[in-house]
Amino acid sequence: MPTGQDANLRFLRRAIALATENVRAGHGGPFAAVVVRDGRILGEGVNTVTAANDPTAHAEVNAIRAAATALGDFSLAGCEIYSSCEPCPMCLAACYWARLGAIYFAATAADAAHAGFDDDYIHDEFAKPVDARSLPAINLLREEAWASFQAWIEAGKKIPY
Amino acid sequence: MPTGQDANLRFLRRAIALATENVRAGHGGPFAAVVVRDGRILGEGVNTVTAANDPTAHAEVNAIRAAATALGDFSLAGCEIYSSCEPCPMCLAACYWARLGAIYFAATAADAAHAGFDDDYIHDEFAKPVDARSLPAINLLREEAWASFQAWIEAGKKIPY
Repeated sequence: MPTGQDANLRFLRRAIALATENVRAGHGGPFAAVVVRDGRILGEGVNTVTAANDPTAHAEVNAIRAAATALGDFSLAGCEIYSSCEPCPMCLAACYWARLGAIYFAATAADAAHAGFDDDYIHDEFAKPVDARSLPAINLLREEAWASFQAWIEAGKKIPY
Repeated sequence: MPTGQDANLRFLRRAIALATENVRAGHGGPFAAVVVRDGRILGEGVNTVTAANDPTAHAEVNAIRAAATALGDFSLAGCEIYSSCEPCPMCLAACYWARLGAIYFAATAADAAHAGFDDDYIHDEFAKPVDARSLPAINLLREEAWASFQAWIEAGKKIPY
């Protein structure tokens, strides 16, 4: 089992190869990622947005889902992700929710933008106050919505996540 | 077909009811969302993180995936999402990628935090420079990674998304 930097390069090269293969096979965009624990790949993912008609099917999301399925656990604590490209905001947040310990990435967001994949506008939107964003977010029925949380609190069978 | 504010309240109440039902059924957290187009629900989703062992299976992601599957299109342009709770950063970014036209939400992020679901730390992490975040992100092999984008550019069969 390779360790340290040799392993990091090996897993990143695997992600890059999968990304290139995804394009050549006509399955989707030039993005792939692998989730690793203890030097072993638990799950791999490629971008399948267009192939699967799923706007959330980015490489990192797919790799996280595959690894969590393989482990039978919604937590990937103790795992790292190796992505062919710097994660977009959706995938970065998914890495936090999955409790990954580190992100290794090869291409940068600037490289992706140079190839026509620009997620800077989402980054920029996040930095704005809610009412200044291009995607309107309207709050209604706040009081009524507490009923769902009240049911959760009363259920007392919470699994923290 | 109800329109305007009546419809907004109806779809939000549907999301709140689904969120409460998700807890009562023991399927997961108190969150649900519906995606709507032209006054009709195209897809519904509840939080299935623990039930599906999928850290990305938040209500909004599940609703977006269901609606995109129903439409047979990765773009949900012309649709709106109604969520029982203010979207977390992952789901907010997913709404942008899905090209949704508006987000209606009932409970606020502060309400969710009060019930034990705190995503403020992810918001806060996004605002930090990469090297100041608690989740390390390491860039390696940037040059090699261009090969995947080069393959994409040469393929000339790009579907923009």
